[in-house]
Amino acid sequence: MVLPDTTEDTQGSGLASVNPDLASERLTASFCVPRLTAVLDGGAERTRLRRAVEDVIESDPVFSRENQYFQSQNERYEAAVRKAVHVRKKMQEMGWSEDGPESVYVYRALSGDVAFLLHRVFMRSISVLGSDKQVAKWIPLASEYQLIGSYAQTELGHGTYLQGLETTAVFDISTQEFILNTPTISAMKWWPGDMGRSATHTVVFAQLYIHGKCYGVHPFIVQIRSCQDHSLCPGVIAGDIGPKMNFEHIDNGYLMLKNVRIPRENMLNKFCEVQPDGTYIRRGSQKINYFTMTSVRISLISDEVILPLMKACTIAIRYSVVRRQSKLKPGEEEAKILDYQTQQEKLLPQLAAAYAFHFINNYLHELFNRGYREIQGRNFDSLPELHAFSSGFKAMVTQYCTSGLEICLRACGGHGYSLLSGLPSLYTKILASCIYEGENTILLLQTARFLIKCFTAASAGQPVPPSVTYLAAVKPGKCPAKDKLDFLSPDIYTEAYQHAAIRLISSTAAKLQDLIQSGVERHEAWNQCTVQLVQAAKAHCHYITVKNFVETVEKLENTAGIQNIMKHLCDLFALHGIFSNAGIFLHDGYITGAQMDMVTASYLDLLGIIRKDAVPLVDAFDFTDKNLNSALGSYDGQVYQRLYEWARKAPTNKQISPAYEKYLKPLLHNKLSKL
Amino acid sequence: MVLPDTTEDTQGSGLASVNPDLASERLTASFCVPRLTAVLDGGAERTRLRRAVEDVIESDPVFSRENQYFQSQNERYEAAVRKAVHVRKKMQEMGWSEDGPESVYVYRALSGDVAFLLHRVFMRSISVLGSDKQVAKWIPLASEYQLIGSYAQTELGHGTYLQGLETTAVFDISTQEFILNTPTISAMKWWPGDMGRSATHTVVFAQLYIHGKCYGVHPFIVQIRSCQDHSLCPGVIAGDIGPKMNFEHIDNGYLMLKNVRIPRENMLNKFCEVQPDGTYIRRGSQKINYFTMTSVRISLISDEVILPLMKACTIAIRYSVVRRQSKLKPGEEEAKILDYQTQQEKLLPQLAAAYAFHFINNYLHELFNRGYREIQGRNFDSLPELHAFSSGFKAMVTQYCTSGLEICLRACGGHGYSLLSGLPSLYTKILASCIYEGENTILLLQTARFLIKCFTAASAGQPVPPSVTYLAAVKPGKCPAKDKLDFLSPDIYTEAYQHAAIRLISSTAAKLQDLIQSGVERHEAWNQCTVQLVQAAKAHCHYITVKNFVETVEKLENTAGIQNIMKHLCDLFALHGIFSNAGIFLHDGYITGAQMDMVTASYLDLLGIIRKDAVPLVDAFDFTDKNLNSALGSYDGQVYQRLYEWARKAPTNKQISPAYEKYLKPLLHNKLSKL
Repeated sequence: MVLPDTTEDTQGSGLASVNPDLASERLTASFCVPRLTAVLDGGAERTRLRRAVEDVIESDPVFSRENQYFQSQNERYEAAVRKAVHVRKKMQEMGWSEDGPESVYVYRALSGDVAFLLHRVFMRSISVLGSDKQVAKWIPLASEYQLIGSYAQTELGHGTYLQGLETTAVFDISTQEFILNTPTISAMKWWPGDMGRSATHTVVFAQLYIHGKCYGVHPFIVQIRSCQDHSLCPGVIAGDIGPKMNFEHIDNGYLMLKNVRIPRENMLNKFCEVQPDGTYIRRGSQKINYFTMTSVRISLISDEVILPLMKACTIAIRYSVVRRQSKLKPGEEEAKILDYQTQQEKLLPQLAAAYAFHFINNYLHELFNRGYREIQGRNFDSLPELHAFSSGFKAMVTQYCTSGLEICLRACGGHGYSLLSGLPSLYTKILASCIYEGENTILLLQTARFLIKCFTAASAGQPVPPSVTYLAAVKPGKCPAKDKLDFLSPDIYTEAYQHAAIRLISSTAAKLQDLIQSGVERHEAWNQCTVQLVQAAKAHCHYITVKNFVETVEKLENTAGIQNIMKHLCDLFALHGIFSNAGIFLHDGYITGAQMDMVTASYLDLLGIIRKDAVPLVDAFDFTDKNLNSALGSYDGQVYQRLYEWARKAPTNKQISPAYEKYLKPLLHNKLSKL
Repeated sequence: MVLPDTTEDTQGSGLASVNPDLASERLTASFCVPRLTAVLDGGAERTRLRRAVEDVIESDPVFSRENQYFQSQNERYEAAVRKAVHVRKKMQEMGWSEDGPESVYVYRALSGDVAFLLHRVFMRSISVLGSDKQVAKWIPLASEYQLIGSYAQTELGHGTYLQGLETTAVFDISTQEFILNTPTISAMKWWPGDMGRSATHTVVFAQLYIHGKCYGVHPFIVQIRSCQDHSLCPGVIAGDIGPKMNFEHIDNGYLMLKNVRIPRENMLNKFCEVQPDGTYIRRGSQKINYFTMTSVRISLISDEVILPLMKACTIAIRYSVVRRQSKLKPGEEEAKILDYQTQQEKLLPQLAAAYAFHFINNYLHELFNRGYREIQGRNFDSLPELHAFSSGFKAMVTQYCTSGLEICLRACGGHGYSLLSGLPSLYTKILASCIYEGENTILLLQTARFLIKCFTAASAGQPVPPSVTYLAAVKPGKCPAKDKLDFLSPDIYTEAYQHAAIRLISSTAAKLQDLIQSGVERHEAWNQCTVQLVQAAKAHCHYITVKNFVETVEKLENTAGIQNIMKHLCDLFALHGIFSNAGIFLHDGYITGAQMDMVTASYLDLLGIIRKDAVPLVDAFDFTDKNLNSALGSYDGQVYQRLYEWARKAPTNKQISPAYEKYLKPLLHNKLSKL
C-alpha cells in the first residue's frame, strides 16, 4: 500500500465568522430582537444589568465550564465548591448582595454549576420558620459562611409524603434538649444537597415527641460536622449517595442520627414552640411547614426548568439551519433541516412553550409575592390556592419542558446525543425537576383535590378563588369556528380549553360522586378516579397558561412586530395543544372532526410562518456562547469545526489506553499476523 | 451538647431474605411463571441453555459489572475491551461458536457492555456485500482477530441520508488502486463504534469515482492502524469523539483520510465491480447497500430495545410493591405504591408493551429470514416491503420503549434517578436507538411512502404485499361496541385500529393528491403532508402490532392461565393505545365519546386485574440480579439496604475531597468561628 507522507491535521484551526446559513436567518427578522429581549428581561435596563453581570462572571476563569463535559463526579464537586466560595468573594468585591437584582443573574450565568444552593434553602427555611431570635442568631452566621447549611427533609423511605417521615426528635425535659434519632434504615435522610461532603449544619425534619405523644413533623437545626476540622459530630453518620443521572457537582448526601442531642432553642419556632415544661404551643397553620417547599418550588421554575428549555431551543434551532440533509427538491442543494415540516413540528411548539411558560412564571411570581406578604402578617387564607396553583404548575411546566428538551435533543440526531452538544446534560438535569420538590403526579392530584372542592363549591353557588371562577360557568355549547382562520382567534381557542377543563373536572367529580353513592368507600373511589383527576388538573393548568399568554400578548405594545410574532407563538402554543390532545376536545363533540382538520391546517400553517423568525426568536433569549456551552448552538453556527475541536480535547484522546498493551496487542499478535 | 459514644454503623450489614411485601406478590400468581418464561424463550430447552450460558458468564469475575456506575469513560473502555477479548477465549473454551445459539445468550448476559460489536458488523457487511473471494480472505482474519474491524458510514455532516456522503474513492487505473479522501470537515467519518481507539480496519462508505464520473456510494475495506504497533496508517487521522450520553465503553470515533490508497480488490464487490480497465459492472439492485443497515436494524431491536424495557419494568414493578408511601385509607398502614391507580397506569401499559414487542419481534425475524434467503438467491423483490416494514417497526418500537423506560424511571421517584437503580443507564442507552441505524422520523416517512404507494395500488385494484392488503378494504362503518365488555373483544379493537390506520393513510393520500392537483409541486406537497404521514405510518405499525399480539394469544395453549393473562395484556396494550390516542379514533366518529368512556372504563379495570399478576409477569422475564444490576430491582426486594451499601462504595466516599483543605477550611475559618 503506497501512502502519502502528509498526515498532519490542517483542519478545524480557529473558528472564523458566522456560518452563512445561520447569518442569512438573521437578515429577515420580522421584529427587533433587542426589543424582544428587553420584554423578556422586564425592561432594557434589566438587560443591561444582566449582561454586565454575565460579563463579570464569564470573564473570570474560575467560573469557566469549559471542561465540564470531561470531568468526574469528584472533579465536578471540587469545581462547584471552588465556584461557590469564589462567587461569594466576587459578589462582595462587586458590592452585590444576595438579595439584590444582580444575584439572580449571577446564578443564571453560573448555570447552576455551583455548590451551596442548599445553604440558601437552609437560610430561607430559617427566615420563614424561625423566630426573630433564631433569625438573629443563625442568619448572620450563615451569611458569613461560618457554617454551611443543608436542608434534610427527604428520607430513604419517604419523599413527598412528609407525614410519613420517620426521623424522631424526642424532647428530654430534664436536659431541655431534643434527642434526634434515625430509628430504621428507611428513616435515613437521603438526597439533601450539600450534605454528603460539605455541610456543617442542616435543618432536619423529624417527628416531634413530647412525653411520648407525637406532634407531627417539625424542623430542627442540627450540627453534623465540626466547623474546626470538619469531622462528623458524635452520633452522626453521613456521606455521599453516589452517582446520579446529573448533579455530579452536588454532594447529595445521606445522614443517620444516633441519639444526637440539640438544645431546645434549635427547633424552628416561629409557628410552634415547645416550652421548657414540655407544653406545646401552635401559632398558626401546620401547613406553614409546606411553605418553604412551595417557595422553593416556585423559585426553581425559571432557572431550572424554563431557561433550560430556552437553551435547548436555541441550540436545536440554530443547528437546524446549519445542518443540511437530503433534498426537498430533486436537483437542488440539500435542504436546511428546519425547512422540513416534521422538524418544524418538533421544535417550534417547544419554542412557543418556552415563551408561554416564561409569561405564566411571571404571573405565578406575582401571586406568590402577594401570598408571602399575607403570611408574614399571619394570614394563611391564600395558602391553599397558592399551594394548589404552584403544585399544578410545577408539575405541568416540568413535564412539558422535560419532554420538550428530549424532543430538542433527538431533533439534533447523533450530534445531539454527544455531551458536547450541551443537550444531554440539560436533559438529565431537567428530568430531575419532575421528581424533586414534589413528585408530579402527587402534585397534580393536590391540584385536582382543590379543583374538585372548588367545583363543588361553585356548583353550590358558593364563592371560589379568582383562578377557578370559570368552573361556575358550565355550559354545553359547541365551538363556533367555521374555517381554519377562526382558530386563530384567541376567544375561540381559549373557550375550547376552558370547555375541556370544565368537562374533565365535572365528569370526574360526577364519577367520584357516583362511586361513593354506589357504596364505594371515599378513599377507594378517589383512587379509582386518579388517572382522570390528573388529566383534569393538567387541562386546568393548560387552560390558565393559554389564557395568560393571550392576556400577555394583548398587553404588549405593537412595536417592531413584537406583538405580531408573539400572537403567532400564542396561537401555535394553543393549537399545538389541541392538535396533540385532540381526544379531549373531540370527546363530547365540542370540536368536530371537520373543525379538528381546521385546527390541523392552521397549526401547520403557523409552523411555516414562525419558521421564518425561528432564529431571531431564539437569539432574543440572549444566551452567551459560554452560557450555552454547546458545540452545536453557538452564535456563529460553526458546528462541525467546534465538535471536532472539542472532541480532540476529550480525556479519551489524551491517554494512550492501557487496553492496547494489556489486551489488544496480545490479541492481534496471537498468531503470526498476515497483515 | 452531650453526645453518645457509639457512632459506628451497624445498619445494612448483609442482605437477608426476600422482602415480605415482594414475597407475598409471588404467592398469588394466576399462572405458572417458569412456563411463561419458556414461552418467551421459545421452549424450556432454550431457557435451560440461556441459564447455563448466563451462569458461565456471570460466575466469571472478568465480566462483573459491579463497578460500572462508578467508572470513567477511560475505565469503561478498558473494561469493555478486556471483556471482548476474554469472551472470545471463554467461548472457545466452552466450544460455543459465534453463530451458535449460545452466542445470543452470551451477549444478553454481557448486557452490551463489551467492545468489538462493530467488529461483528464489519464481518456481517463483508459476508453480505463481499464476493466469495473477499469472504474467503477477510472473514477468517476477522474471526481469528488478526484485525479489528469497524464500519464507517456516518459522517460529521451526513447520517441517514447515505447519498449525501462526501468521502470519495477515486479509481486510479494506473496503479489499480482506489484513492480515498475526506474532502471537507463535514466529510469526516464520525460515530463509528470501535474506531476511535481500537480498530485496525474498517469498511468505509465512499462515493466511487471512475474517470471523473460518480457512481454513488460503495463500501471499501480500509486499514487504518498498524496491526503490529497500532499506530495510525499514513494519511489517516483518527480518534475518539468524546463523551456521550451513554456508550462510554465504546470508542466511537472520527476518521479523516488523506490520499489513502487501497487495492482494487478492497471494494466489496458481490453486487458491483470495477474492472481493471475502469469498467463498472452492477450485479443487482443498488439498494443492497441498505441491506446491512436493515439487517443491523432488525438484529438490535431485541437486545437493545425490548430487553431494556423488560428490565425497566422488572425494576420499577418490584420496587413499586416494596415502596410504601402515603395512605390509601386513613388509619391503615402506608400503601404499596403499585396499589395507586396512577402508578398502575404508568407501569402496566409498559409491561404490556414489552410483551407486545417481544411477539412482534419474533414475527419480524421470520419475515427477515425469508427475505434474506431470497436475496442470497439474488431475488430482490421482497426488499422494499422488508425495508418499509423494518424501518417503521424500528421507529415505533424504539420510540415506544424509550418513552416507556422514561416512565419507569420517573415512576421510581428520586431513587430511579440514582445511577444505582440501573434505570438512568438503561434510559440513556435506549434513547440512542431512536437515532442510530436511521433517524426515526425519516424511517417512518419511508414506511409512509411505501404505504401511500400500496394504498394507491390497492385502490386501483392492483395486488399489494400481504402486510398491507387491509388497505384495499376501506369501509366507513362505526364501532359496534355497546358496553365496556365489548372492548375486551379483539375483533372490536383490532378493527378500530385498522379503521384508524386506513383513515389516516387515505386522508393523507387525498391531501397529497389535492395539493398536487392545486398546482403545488410534488416534493413540496409531500413536505406539507409529512406530519400527517408520520402519524399514518405509526398507526399502521400500531395496528399490525395489536393484530400480531391477538394472533399470538390465540396460538398460546391455555395452560396454567398463560393464555388468560396474555389475553389481558393484549387487551391492555390495545386499550391503552386507544385511550392515549383518543383523537385518532374519535375524529370521524368511528368511536363515539360514549364508547370512549367504555374504553376508559375497561382500560382502568384491566389495570386492577393485571396489578395482581404484575410481579409474576416481570419475574417471567427471568433476569438475574447481575443482569439487572439495580439496587431497586433485585429479586429479594431489599431496596433500601442495597442502595445504602452500594452508595458507600462510590468514589465520592472513598476520597477525602481536596475541596475541604483548599476551599472549605479557609471559608469556615475566615473569622473567629463562634461554633
